Amino acid sequence: MGERKRVQMTFHELPMKVAINSWRLVMDTADTIFSGLTQEQLLREAAPGKNGVIYLLGHLTAVHDRMFSILGLGPRLHPDLDALFIDNPDKAAAEILSARQLKQYWDEVNETVLSRFQNLSADEWLLQHRAMSEEDYAKDPIPNRLAVLLSRTNHLSDHLGQLAFALK
Amino acid sequence: MGERKRVQMTFHELPMKVAINSWRLVMDTADTIFSGLTQEQLLREAAPGKNGVIYLLGHLTAVHDRMFSILGLGPRLHPDLDALFIDNPDKAAAEILSARQLKQYWDEVNETVLSRFQNLSADEWLLQHRAMSEEDYAKDPIPNRLAVLLSRTNHLSDHLGQLAFALK
Repeated sequence: MGERKRVQMTFHELPMKVAINSWRLVMDTADTIFSGLTQEQLLREAAPGKNGVIYLLGHLTAVHDRMFSILGLGPRLHPDLDALFIDNPDKAAAEILSARQLKQYWDEVNETVLSRFQNLSADEWLLQHRAMSEEDYAKDPIPNRLAVLLSRTNHLSDHLGQLAFALK
Repeated sequence: MGERKRVQMTFHELPMKVAINSWRLVMDTADTIFSGLTQEQLLREAAPGKNGVIYLLGHLTAVHDRMFSILGLGPRLHPDLDALFIDNPDKAAAEILSARQLKQYWDEVNETVLSRFQNLSADEWLLQHRAMSEEDYAKDPIPNRLAVLLSRTNHLSDHLGQLAFALK
């Protein structure tokens, strides 16, 4: 009975441990890429005729920073990034912040958000996120907090594929 | 009590529903991209000086086909694809199969694997996959079947980012 209970406890928390580990694995790859970039690579285009690699670093930092709000993990660290890197996909925006500054934000946001993931219980991860009403959740609980985490993991993976192409 | 039980039941199955939905969302994007490709686009390079878009279609079909084995969902549909699209990352390999044939395999593999996902219970998704020993699982249950699904979703997202760049 004790044994059985332990296994059920594990099963209850396991899905979130797997999902957070999946995020961590993709983040490890992202960190490796971003920490090794030269100045020349940071200024390359990340899509033909479009935003540069440095813009992508800002964009991902802003999107990850928004997770604090939507997941209810506390106040955002750098809400000002949205205007530059989400609302306004423009080449020039990235020039306002240096690569050095952006990398510092990147590290800070990602370290903090990962540590806050642990503050949510397995059940809380399955509840509605902050941009979702109780009514919407009652109709369809699938786009919940966990769905946000998986969506952000996919978003990061997608941009890493784009980046790998741009850096070759 | 009845209400409480229903909610707990839902919570038990919800993580897998979210994970399978995440896969489905990325697959929808992939289907939209692959179904709209022109012959010229299929022959483009998907990475500078490397494999073409058609090769990527074969590679993703092979990787998804391997999920039948590793997740224990029944026999694979196209094991022959591995030699061409996984073991041998070579431009010429893709020319052996036509784009038409590959797209047929792509549809067949992805439709079947998605329908088989439903055959696994929430608990089975949290158990070890077929390439993992019970001993390994006892030490660390995180790289389980669910982890394989999330990893394949990230892999697909990554290649879609690469593809979006190649097709622009």
